[in-house]
Amino acid sequence: MKGLVYNGPRDVSVETVEDPRIEHPCDVLVKLTTTNICGSDLHMYEGRTNIEPGQVFGHENLGEVVAVGKAVSRVKTGDVVCLPFNISCGFCKNCERGLTAFCLTMNPGRAGAAYGYANMGPYRGGQAELLRVPYGDFNCLVLPEDAKEKEDDYVMLSDIFPTGWHATELAQLQPGESVVIYGAGPVGLLAAHSAMLKSAAKVMVVDRQPDRLALAESIGAIAIDDSKVDPVERVLDLTKGGADKGCECVGWQCHEPEHGHEVPNMTMNNLVQSVRATGRIGVVGVFVPQDPNSPDELAQQGELAFDFGTFFDKGLSMGSGQTNVKAYNRQQCELIHAGLAKPSFIVSHHLSLDEAPDAYAHFDRREDGWTKVLLNPAA
Amino acid sequence: MKGLVYNGPRDVSVETVEDPRIEHPCDVLVKLTTTNICGSDLHMYEGRTNIEPGQVFGHENLGEVVAVGKAVSRVKTGDVVCLPFNISCGFCKNCERGLTAFCLTMNPGRAGAAYGYANMGPYRGGQAELLRVPYGDFNCLVLPEDAKEKEDDYVMLSDIFPTGWHATELAQLQPGESVVIYGAGPVGLLAAHSAMLKSAAKVMVVDRQPDRLALAESIGAIAIDDSKVDPVERVLDLTKGGADKGCECVGWQCHEPEHGHEVPNMTMNNLVQSVRATGRIGVVGVFVPQDPNSPDELAQQGELAFDFGTFFDKGLSMGSGQTNVKAYNRQQCELIHAGLAKPSFIVSHHLSLDEAPDAYAHFDRREDGWTKVLLNPAA
Amino acid sequence: MKGLVYNGPRDVSVETVEDPRIEHPCDVLVKLTTTNICGSDLHMYEGRTNIEPGQVFGHENLGEVVAVGKAVSRVKTGDVVCLPFNISCGFCKNCERGLTAFCLTMNPGRAGAAYGYANMGPYRGGQAELLRVPYGDFNCLVLPEDAKEKEDDYVMLSDIFPTGWHATELAQLQPGESVVIYGAGPVGLLAAHSAMLKSAAKVMVVDRQPDRLALAESIGAIAIDDSKVDPVERVLDLTKGGADKGCECVGWQCHEPEHGHEVPNMTMNNLVQSVRATGRIGVVGVFVPQDPNSPDELAQQGELAFDFGTFFDKGLSMGSGQTNVKAYNRQQCELIHAGLAKPSFIVSHHLSLDEAPDAYAHFDRREDGWTKVLLNPAA
Amino acid sequence: MKGLVYNGPRDVSVETVEDPRIEHPCDVLVKLTTTNICGSDLHMYEGRTNIEPGQVFGHENLGEVVAVGKAVSRVKTGDVVCLPFNISCGFCKNCERGLTAFCLTMNPGRAGAAYGYANMGPYRGGQAELLRVPYGDFNCLVLPEDAKEKEDDYVMLSDIFPTGWHATELAQLQPGESVVIYGAGPVGLLAAHSAMLKSAAKVMVVDRQPDRLALAESIGAIAIDDSKVDPVERVLDLTKGGADKGCECVGWQCHEPEHGHEVPNMTMNNLVQSVRATGRIGVVGVFVPQDPNSPDELAQQGELAFDFGTFFDKGLSMGSGQTNVKAYNRQQCELIHAGLAKPSFIVSHHLSLDEAPDAYAHFDRREDGWTKVLLNPAA
Repeated sequence: MKGLVYNGPRDVSVETVEDPRIEHPCDVLVKLTTTNICGSDLHMYEGRTNIEPGQVFGHENLGEVVAVGKAVSRVKTGDVVCLPFNISCGFCKNCERGLTAFCLTMNPGRAGAAYGYANMGPYRGGQAELLRVPYGDFNCLVLPEDAKEKEDDYVMLSDIFPTGWHATELAQLQPGESVVIYGAGPVGLLAAHSAMLKSAAKVMVVDRQPDRLALAESIGAIAIDDSKVDPVERVLDLTKGGADKGCECVGWQCHEPEHGHEVPNMTMNNLVQSVRATGRIGVVGVFVPQDPNSPDELAQQGELAFDFGTFFDKGLSMGSGQTNVKAYNRQQCELIHAGLAKPSFIVSHHLSLDEAPDAYAHFDRREDGWTKVLLNPAA
Repeated sequence: MKGLVYNGPRDVSVETVEDPRIEHPCDVLVKLTTTNICGSDLHMYEGRTNIEPGQVFGHENLGEVVAVGKAVSRVKTGDVVCLPFNISCGFCKNCERGLTAFCLTMNPGRAGAAYGYANMGPYRGGQAELLRVPYGDFNCLVLPEDAKEKEDDYVMLSDIFPTGWHATELAQLQPGESVVIYGAGPVGLLAAHSAMLKSAAKVMVVDRQPDRLALAESIGAIAIDDSKVDPVERVLDLTKGGADKGCECVGWQCHEPEHGHEVPNMTMNNLVQSVRATGRIGVVGVFVPQDPNSPDELAQQGELAFDFGTFFDKGLSMGSGQTNVKAYNRQQCELIHAGLAKPSFIVSHHLSLDEAPDAYAHFDRREDGWTKVLLNPAA
Repeated sequence: MKGLVYNGPRDVSVETVEDPRIEHPCDVLVKLTTTNICGSDLHMYEGRTNIEPGQVFGHENLGEVVAVGKAVSRVKTGDVVCLPFNISCGFCKNCERGLTAFCLTMNPGRAGAAYGYANMGPYRGGQAELLRVPYGDFNCLVLPEDAKEKEDDYVMLSDIFPTGWHATELAQLQPGESVVIYGAGPVGLLAAHSAMLKSAAKVMVVDRQPDRLALAESIGAIAIDDSKVDPVERVLDLTKGGADKGCECVGWQCHEPEHGHEVPNMTMNNLVQSVRATGRIGVVGVFVPQDPNSPDELAQQGELAFDFGTFFDKGLSMGSGQTNVKAYNRQQCELIHAGLAKPSFIVSHHLSLDEAPDAYAHFDRREDGWTKVLLNPAA
Repeated sequence: MKGLVYNGPRDVSVETVEDPRIEHPCDVLVKLTTTNICGSDLHMYEGRTNIEPGQVFGHENLGEVVAVGKAVSRVKTGDVVCLPFNISCGFCKNCERGLTAFCLTMNPGRAGAAYGYANMGPYRGGQAELLRVPYGDFNCLVLPEDAKEKEDDYVMLSDIFPTGWHATELAQLQPGESVVIYGAGPVGLLAAHSAMLKSAAKVMVVDRQPDRLALAESIGAIAIDDSKVDPVERVLDLTKGGADKGCECVGWQCHEPEHGHEVPNMTMNNLVQSVRATGRIGVVGVFVPQDPNSPDELAQQGELAFDFGTFFDKGLSMGSGQTNVKAYNRQQCELIHAGLAKPSFIVSHHLSLDEAPDAYAHFDRREDGWTKVLLNPAA
């Protein structure tokens, strides 16, 4: 089959790779119809991780079941399914508590596995024609009858809609509260969408890219352009002293707005200043235990110069980490099905698999208008 | 009346100060019978805060009601009461949610007020003969009939038992889990006591002072001497990969064991390494927004070089801040009354008010055996 | 001043009664501008309670502060305030946990006090020109600058919007879930409004009065007319086996649709059948410990023939009782202020105090179009 | 193999039945070493259910794995495992939320499956030599190295320790609270044990059988003999107005103490009277949707004359249903392993499989001293 293969920093190509097959009685084989490029694919694309050449990228996958193993009973051939980016066993200590992002079985030696992702196991990604899904009965979300019609929405259940939602869950966002979200990339925008679905009274989104800020405003959020105003002051002003809750949707590669230099502690320390005493912060932007190529000395060993004194003084709390997709994808599926959620508002491009290498280049340069790329391998 | 007055760094004395009186219809006046010296008094004693000379210290107070204002209806003259160190109004946005450590009324411009404490309002402390208690009906915990008999236990409800408990609550400690507690001072020991009352299956306490480690062992905890072993390795070993939960009960003045130098990020980064993926950390050791006299450059501005990359990678969460005493003191009072809790096991000295200056000197030098000093002003 | 006085079953009149005054240093005096007639006023009006002649009704009150006691510091003369129907002290064991509907102070011998309400203390109601508010700093919700403009919305914060919301909280309704609400009176309609604000995917409302069903549909709920279809079958059909959650917003005087006979266990047993296994039910419709005049023998002693076997077999849970208004009114105020909530959609009549007796007669007959009456005593 | 077969009301015998085998790649085969007789086995034994003759009883099972299916990866031959009485798939809507007692897969048409149990699927029970365990990786709790030494404790993890714990969870019992438990059978006693592990300040247990009351006292609970005192009055007295929480551990066959007549609503209505306003009740005693042979007319159709008026008036909540064993068995295993829990204190008899029919007869007559029977089929 064809798949998008990583060759080295900023070098990917579509190649013919071996077809996946049923390897275990619980496996399911899926023919992909939509698979997205994610911001975290860029970490690997840019060579900032230890992913090995030859790996196929792609962890935001949706498609049709074409084969099932002998032990599979719930999922049937022909089902249209969306796959959580986390690969989970369903029976370890973490999975049985719903913490499927930290499965102890699928990636021995580390908690958590994923498709086509650095440090998250040997699993091939879905920017390809076919995907092997381990423990299919546990991992597949079978979509309702409007699966094809709303495919652009449902594919967001694989990662970024649950990830944005997770940010608001970690922050324990309640109806009527105010929330500031740092980052208006796809995850930040879907965190804002999630906040609105939860009836936050004031949703503020900080970024500087005009297309992203415009999308934030299009769903009713207050866009704050940090290249023009001090975002902390603006939030304090809008909230008379601090937002109730905050979300980090940027990660360790966050840049200061003037010269674009990486300042790894910028968003976190801004959040500590932006939320009110007793506030909570949800962190879903990726931070890494080490980053040897970082220009920042602390960041090389995964450390941040963090405003811990103020964090403590204000009695803040924070939760962090990759989302447990299965904790949210079923209820979010209902929200899409009922027409309440429409996460596809962020989609900018539908492309074929062959166009993927070019799309990576555009997306990596954060070109205006390249908000979210969906690949359609079966088209 | 007599009160312990701060004169300057490492200089306190017992002086005659003006008697407190009912200033507001909701005030209550208490004649103190037990008032403790707290580890956080030492921050002020050592001149590490901006507390002003002339202030009376003392925020761990218990005594008898001797007068009540005209609006007071629940509390009666003669009641034996324990006072939360937080002074709270009971009706602001935070108090009505139980977040009484972050009262928005009693210390305008900052969330939270306390008796005799830097940055926490003009309130005189209780290392004295009398104490004015604002909003007495809200703030006084009226003790049961065994108040005098168990006075050494009940006085711990003013601060350190709720603070130790809070550490385990912020960490969301559940029965059957393992927990590592950094710091075996009074708060760390009562965090360990709390953990046992919650049926933690394994309670590990890290410190290096033999008297404290012995106390930890006396209640059934596993004492880890970090001057002899690497505490992270020991915890990973004891728990086969990481404690379920962790508590920080030391604060920003934590020292490395060999030469006693302050290493402000030591306990926090050890905690990040010590807990397992998906773990939670409760931070009740004090960290401050700025510390101009710190030897550590980051710490001067309240920052820590924090292992944020690993924190995120493991999907950790943490809560922090001063405890909301009223959130726990009623249930802890029941535990003491029922004989299940006995926080007085940490008491090392009963002294008169006149002996307080000397006691400060001993306690500040962390002399062996000076675990916890109780002053009895009425004795 | 003038007030609506209860004389006996179905007999109320506007009379001159003694002016209230500041009786305690924590009291606040409010000049009422809007005060609603509530469905639970009808229980008293119809003589189904032991309320005594001479009492002034009215527990849904909003107005302007005209005087404050000496101990009051937060609330100021001139503030526009909405008063929770519960009268609470703020410092008892229940109030300090936020359970203000079960205050142990204000109505000795029973948990919970209210204005002008049977069995809930000696407090005069607000269907009058003035109202004495005990513990004003604790009980008054000070409204924002659009208080007058949105007065019809804000007055709903006194009772029925928090009550409707409480039904969904007791049911632990989550985004994306389905919920069935029995009763489309003002509380049921605001439970439906609450469910939508929480992004329930499917909100079903059961009633039979066309005006109510039309209002339910006007906000996007699915109206189920139980005079035309079996509501249980309809819900099972719409949800493929049972709603995730259910709300009871009718109470013990529920009637069967055909002949209008009281069948006290009808809504509860329908709920047990309507929700799926593991479901939760929130009960805010009023049920009483005894009802000597009930036609139903069990109901006379406050008992229901309840489908407990099925309740257990399905592993159901339920919560019940009057709402703790202060638990929700601040966040709901934010929702109204932000334009997300608009509970005034249920208002059918604005009348003067003098028109109140006539309004009671219409409302008691459940006349078509008399959904919710607002009295404006100051008009 | 040999198994205990149901022949009809009060008629069971040990027969040779077909050996179970691996039927599905996820199956595990267990050789039983301990299997208990449960109080709910008596419902079937007495002919109060529709269980069919020929079925093998036994849902409290522990043993050694002797074979695993091809898809099984976590569980190994030789592992000593304790089996939850619920048989669950691990991947349905309920299982993925931890609601394994209400699995939607294993018993189509009804939520929830179990071994050898009326209405809970075709699964043969474990009062036999061998047991087939579906979805072994999900359902088996692999025991630690002290499995044999503490086998009498660990076998309680199959049902009654999680069930007793569940009662306290449904009641949301907190440290320092008081709780009343109706029923001192094995489940009630383990609810009391659970309450103590959670540091309840006062644990009251109501029963009338001297051996059970003695066991309750032996673990520090307050035994209340309802054949001698009014249990409600006693509880109100001991708690100054009502227990914080309550547990129902008897079920629909509860008897009044004087003549032993079934009074199905007795315990539930006593609970409503016994707990204080705002209290919560956990119901784990079995109530059934219909009981054609009941002497009580309402009970025939599964209804109780329930004190709903008082329930509402006090703002009570309750949760009910079979326990989700996997929600608790891992943490309870830690408690046993750490020596904190010792549920075997209730064991009265160790018998061979051949002695089981006789044991049923004794246990069914509630003979003094027959608290809990453990069968050892491999002995």
